Amino acid sequence: MAPSPMIKTEVAFKANGKQAARQRFEGVFDVLRDEIVADFTSKGMPQDAINWYKRNLEYNLPGGKLNRGLSVVDTVAILKGRALTDDEYFKAALLGWCVELLQSFFLVSDDMMDQSVTRRGQPCWFRVEGVNLLAINDSFMLESAIYFLLKKHFRQESYYVDLLDLFHDITYLTEMGQLLDLITAPEDAVDLSKFSLERHRLIVVYKTAYYSFYLPVALAMHMSGIPASQGSFAPYKAALDILIPLGEYFQIQDDFLDFAGTPEQIGKVGTDILDNKCSWCVNTALAIATPEQRKILDENYGRKDAEKEKRVKEVYEDMKIRERYGVYEEGAYKKIMGLIEAVPETPTADGSPVLKRDVFKVFLDKIYKRTK
Amino acid sequence: MAPSPMIKTEVAFKANGKQAARQRFEGVFDVLRDEIVADFTSKGMPQDAINWYKRNLEYNLPGGKLNRGLSVVDTVAILKGRALTDDEYFKAALLGWCVELLQSFFLVSDDMMDQSVTRRGQPCWFRVEGVNLLAINDSFMLESAIYFLLKKHFRQESYYVDLLDLFHDITYLTEMGQLLDLITAPEDAVDLSKFSLERHRLIVVYKTAYYSFYLPVALAMHMSGIPASQGSFAPYKAALDILIPLGEYFQIQDDFLDFAGTPEQIGKVGTDILDNKCSWCVNTALAIATPEQRKILDENYGRKDAEKEKRVKEVYEDMKIRERYGVYEEGAYKKIMGLIEAVPETPTADGSPVLKRDVFKVFLDKIYKRTK
Repeated sequence: MAPSPMIKTEVAFKANGKQAARQRFEGVFDVLRDEIVADFTSKGMPQDAINWYKRNLEYNLPGGKLNRGLSVVDTVAILKGRALTDDEYFKAALLGWCVELLQSFFLVSDDMMDQSVTRRGQPCWFRVEGVNLLAINDSFMLESAIYFLLKKHFRQESYYVDLLDLFHDITYLTEMGQLLDLITAPEDAVDLSKFSLERHRLIVVYKTAYYSFYLPVALAMHMSGIPASQGSFAPYKAALDILIPLGEYFQIQDDFLDFAGTPEQIGKVGTDILDNKCSWCVNTALAIATPEQRKILDENYGRKDAEKEKRVKEVYEDMKIRERYGVYEEGAYKKIMGLIEAVPETPTADGSPVLKRDVFKVFLDKIYKRTK
Repeated sequence: MAPSPMIKTEVAFKANGKQAARQRFEGVFDVLRDEIVADFTSKGMPQDAINWYKRNLEYNLPGGKLNRGLSVVDTVAILKGRALTDDEYFKAALLGWCVELLQSFFLVSDDMMDQSVTRRGQPCWFRVEGVNLLAINDSFMLESAIYFLLKKHFRQESYYVDLLDLFHDITYLTEMGQLLDLITAPEDAVDLSKFSLERHRLIVVYKTAYYSFYLPVALAMHMSGIPASQGSFAPYKAALDILIPLGEYFQIQDDFLDFAGTPEQIGKVGTDILDNKCSWCVNTALAIATPEQRKILDENYGRKDAEKEKRVKEVYEDMKIRERYGVYEEGAYKKIMGLIEAVPETPTADGSPVLKRDVFKVFLDKIYKRTK
């Protein structure tokens, strides 16, 4: 049955709204890039260096889904409970771009460590003609641009030091996750005895959840004036306790879709089995495998061979991984929803802004039962 | 003539004092490494990751000359004008180790970008069996350890945010210098038209002077309570104005010794000509070369060939580079001494600690006419 005209219009409106939000956010990038480049130029840097840095920023910053950056803006709007002023919008978007800068710092370097080929539909930066190992220093400069922007726009704010501590902490935790991932699942040496669901959880929480979920929300909370504690309630701790399981759920879903999603759904062909990735699927399989199944996994996982990939997928299907994922997803959804409902939204005695359940519900709704 | 027994004793005493200072400083490293590893462990990290991180710290942190780190301690002692308490010593040494961590972050990654072979008499970290590209993330963790230590030990200090800003600023400036160096003097593509004394100055100031000379002194000044301004005098600006030329002089001397120093003096065989380094020597030569000399330089510089290196050295000698260096050194010494003498040491009205000329004189004396 074709959707009614009214529903069609609403869908189009939502899509347009999303596109408009993205365009406004991207407009802030142009301003920030110009500020970064103007500062670099003002130091007497020669034109070839200016061109290089500009190209680094333009190649590696926009072009992604921008979910992390946009979620800072969305969260500030929810916490304020009203449309943002132009100045508030700019500052929230700036913090969003700082998250995107952090992500670019990680992706440019991760792609080198993983020897990846493409990223966001273009060659990885280190594979661009003439770049090569310079990409290491280029990734550093993306990280440093965060602190340049924060200093320029937030130095006078009482929460400036909190923003710095937050970026430092999250950066460090993410690097810990990257180390875990690299020593657990090197692409060229398959050893499934290193894998486990607990190891998978550690990698996911440290490498992805902190910077993708907690960081944007905590930044928005600081900008909105939410204090470290409100009576016996600790808002940042509460946010962390919701967003880390949420990030875990998101990544497990991502792992599952890499196996179960069609290319039409996920926009790419999954390669986790071929690439020896420490995925939720293989760890779940390892946890329940019979000796025979374990042997098949040991001999066929991470082998860059389509036939061997097929053998692994057959084991997954025999084990009913799809059903197991469904059970996991329902449990995760209920658990996270319970945590969200426990957030007190009661006004504080001193009138300081309070955390809102909608911040987390918006995230959860975007993720729950997504197929792309 | 043999030195008198008294002089011999004094020399031995000084050498012992230096060694004792180094040992005490190294003792603080053990404490800090344990703190870093304990924090990492407390996050539930598995043993293989703990071992990896510990080895990263132990391979890349001690073992150098530690001049930068030690200079923080020395500077705090000069500014206080008395021996440090144990607590003061520990904090000054901690800041010194943060400078050493920053340097390790740069060296581990620079060695990858330059494809270097050895560092401090051992294989570069990325060349160690099993490390390879993981060294990129390892270098990140060395940087992050700085902010972990600062937060743990300085979060309550009024100058905490100044320490963070300082590390961010200097890190960024150093990365700018590294970018300049990489695009000016790639090891595999000689193009002397990119070189100039002005380009050399920019690389030296950004890549080396800020972090090696200004950073340790500015850290010590913050720790000693020297304020941003004292009447019309700006102590940090004054320190910068002395230490940047000092760092430039130090690097030019380093470049000169790479050409003119004997292996006995400098502890290594100079390879700047073979490696296409953007050295003061070649830039000075390019600035005054006749068309014939220029042709020789173009055809022989940066060519990994001992015969060609010899041709370049002959051109240097024909141009009397040694004499020119002597003239440069005298001029640099006088200029820097003049800047140092202009530092006012008059007590302030509010009794706040003042900058002292000795801070800079100690640096200059260590560098002037050194042959190693």
